[in-house]
Amino acid sequence: MIPSQKSAERPVALLLAPDILDLLDSSPGDIAAETEELHPANLADVAQALPSERVVEFLRALPTARAADVLEYLDDEIRTEVLEALSTTQAAALVSEMTPDDRADALEELEDERADEILSEISTEARGETERLLAYPADSAGGLMTTEFVSVPEDITVEAALISVRNVARAGRREAMHTVYATDARGEVRGVFSLRELLAAPQGARIADISWADVVSVPPTADREEVARLTSKYDLVAIPVVDEGRVLGVVTVDDVIDAMVEEQTEDAQRQGAVAPLEQPYFQAGFWNIARKRGGWLVLLFVAEMLTGTAMRYYESTIAGALSLMFFVPLIISSGGNSGSQSSTLITRALAVGDVELRDGWRVLSRELGQGLALGTFLGAIGFVRAVMWGNSSDLAAVVAITLLAVVLTGTLVGAALPLAFTRFGLDPAIASSPFVASFVDIAGILIYFSVATRILVVG
Amino acid sequence: MIPSQKSAERPVALLLAPDILDLLDSSPGDIAAETEELHPANLADVAQALPSERVVEFLRALPTARAADVLEYLDDEIRTEVLEALSTTQAAALVSEMTPDDRADALEELEDERADEILSEISTEARGETERLLAYPADSAGGLMTTEFVSVPEDITVEAALISVRNVARAGRREAMHTVYATDARGEVRGVFSLRELLAAPQGARIADISWADVVSVPPTADREEVARLTSKYDLVAIPVVDEGRVLGVVTVDDVIDAMVEEQTEDAQRQGAVAPLEQPYFQAGFWNIARKRGGWLVLLFVAEMLTGTAMRYYESTIAGALSLMFFVPLIISSGGNSGSQSSTLITRALAVGDVELRDGWRVLSRELGQGLALGTFLGAIGFVRAVMWGNSSDLAAVVAITLLAVVLTGTLVGAALPLAFTRFGLDPAIASSPFVASFVDIAGILIYFSVATRILVVG
Repeated sequence: MIPSQKSAERPVALLLAPDILDLLDSSPGDIAAETEELHPANLADVAQALPSERVVEFLRALPTARAADVLEYLDDEIRTEVLEALSTTQAAALVSEMTPDDRADALEELEDERADEILSEISTEARGETERLLAYPADSAGGLMTTEFVSVPEDITVEAALISVRNVARAGRREAMHTVYATDARGEVRGVFSLRELLAAPQGARIADISWADVVSVPPTADREEVARLTSKYDLVAIPVVDEGRVLGVVTVDDVIDAMVEEQTEDAQRQGAVAPLEQPYFQAGFWNIARKRGGWLVLLFVAEMLTGTAMRYYESTIAGALSLMFFVPLIISSGGNSGSQSSTLITRALAVGDVELRDGWRVLSRELGQGLALGTFLGAIGFVRAVMWGNSSDLAAVVAITLLAVVLTGTLVGAALPLAFTRFGLDPAIASSPFVASFVDIAGILIYFSVATRILVVG
Repeated sequence: MIPSQKSAERPVALLLAPDILDLLDSSPGDIAAETEELHPANLADVAQALPSERVVEFLRALPTARAADVLEYLDDEIRTEVLEALSTTQAAALVSEMTPDDRADALEELEDERADEILSEISTEARGETERLLAYPADSAGGLMTTEFVSVPEDITVEAALISVRNVARAGRREAMHTVYATDARGEVRGVFSLRELLAAPQGARIADISWADVVSVPPTADREEVARLTSKYDLVAIPVVDEGRVLGVVTVDDVIDAMVEEQTEDAQRQGAVAPLEQPYFQAGFWNIARKRGGWLVLLFVAEMLTGTAMRYYESTIAGALSLMFFVPLIISSGGNSGSQSSTLITRALAVGDVELRDGWRVLSRELGQGLALGTFLGAIGFVRAVMWGNSSDLAAVVAITLLAVVLTGTLVGAALPLAFTRFGLDPAIASSPFVASFVDIAGILIYFSVATRILVVG
């Protein structure tokens, strides 16, 4: 992914910020009207371009519902600051206007005490709803869902449903309205249809006639990856969260996309041998990052010490043929590189579902072939190079044989580890390049010197 | 990301496939009715669970519009096979029912000659539309968009718009209908509103009153990452593709998600030093994969040969202190690991926009700090280990100093390369772990032996 060298939107926010500051000083009453056509995400950019002590003032100058919209788009840190700086009553008024899922997310970021203060001042209904959402893990379907969705009985007519949907739409904001759920007499979900299908339905049709019985849903405990996978597979704009036949809420596609991006970042960091950071790079504390890197780095360092132990074991072989040493970095890096290729390919194929656990043997036999092909090729280059450096053909053969064996080991270990991690319910992304490389480094040293001991002594 | 150990949907398809085969033999006329409530993605799974020679027969047993839906969800390869196996007339009937963007995608996968044959038998209008879409690069907004969307004049009433939208919905499938665009007299887009907003609008309101003037759009040449970034930032379900003020088409969120997943796979493969595969793991040919891996592997191999050259230069130092060699893998892997951590963190931060090019110096000074902290820590462990192995404190000091210097080099190079690649318009993911590691391996060898030559000769 090539990042854009400058983002087009932020400059707009930077240009607007001085005007907003002027208005805040001269006539704050005009701010609402001046900004009413802006997308709330752009207003959030403007808020973030203001000096931090003016952000609260700016949000106060907006109508409450509008300020709540902007709050949803602010960075977590700034939103938390705002909710701490406002009076409890103001904060409560603001979060009351947020969608239930975003409200729960916002309160989750606050100190418990502050969150409780604010919760105590919102309506009993909203409080109960928020507490229910907060009870689910943030990464689960329950933690991602909003409870504002529309359902209608399946036995009413399309006209009656349209009136009902219009009433709901007019009553206030309902985030998740692109799809509507049809329920039976017991309140259990029986079908799903889109607003388009409702509008396209012929006069006199019943909801049961236009709705789809094959409702793709998830339980509240489903992991966010499962939510993302189903949303992507079935091209959904919202996925219902169903428990015992009843729709508890829906996860909307915008939250699915956010979850995908977070998941992607976590995976990339795991593959780079960094424990996932919870914050953006500059917001994460220096020692926090150092700790998340240090843990893996020390673990890999300690593992890599075994290479020294292995070489000490072969000290006499090495003393007899010092030139052997010149190939050590070349050999171990070839194993590491081919291993990281395999682990990347298989980890990714598992993530997108191209490969499943039961394909394990097929994967390994394919990677065996890849290892043989690539290892033979590198071995041939290595042989030529060793001879060109003036080494004996025996030593060149040792290098070539080792390269083949090491590349083979790399591809097999690189492919096997993600499968093994998945098998035991761990994230295959932990089978990161550095992890596989360390493993293969040690194997490479052992292979190299044992081949050398055999061939060079005989030769 | 932890892949699910078994996917819930495929077994359903496997269970259904035998029944479908029975029906194909006994009463193919019943298949349409038996499967009418299934989501087309599930029907596609069923089709893919059938023996390949029966897939076409199965699709023929479905109503054309339904078969076209299923075709959209089939894997590219199988869809291509189907479109080749059908008669041209049948294939043309099928693709005519597909949405314009999916039709273009399907035809793009065919041999040019076959695509032209099919195109020649569809309506002139659909042909022109398809050819326009095919003219855009597949990764651009133009290549992703569908031309079926709804717009209304901004000066009509909400009631008139509702009638117009209903007529469009009833006339046939319009994929992108969650949002509607408001246009002025010249046909230029002036606003956007959702079906929900249309339904919620008060009696007698005009479209201009309910639509949002801040229309987030992309030009047809926009890259798919830009499309994804804006869709995610503004929580859109569809983003209009606008040229000279006119909406040419819209990219729907399901296609944005597909593009995100593909982009993510490409990035992961680049970071694992594999040139991006265009197909899923098992569909990509063996030699195709070997080539995509071999190129990078040989490049890294040749670069890594420089480590041998460097060591030969220090042969006399090495002969004088053989134990130096035992630390070589440990030292170079530490540099590689810290470097791959930095390159991963910065590449990802660039991709999600947490870091921009202008933050370059801030990033480098932060990574300088990380390198100092982590390098000092590893250096201390290395010193203790070297002494424990019975080496002189001079040699232990060489190891410690080198570790600090190498980790520092790793973090700085790992952070600088993604920034540099971005600066020159390249994908920072190319600054992969293996790439950075090779670079740092060579630097590590040079640092190690030059420090050793200095200290051990003096000592």
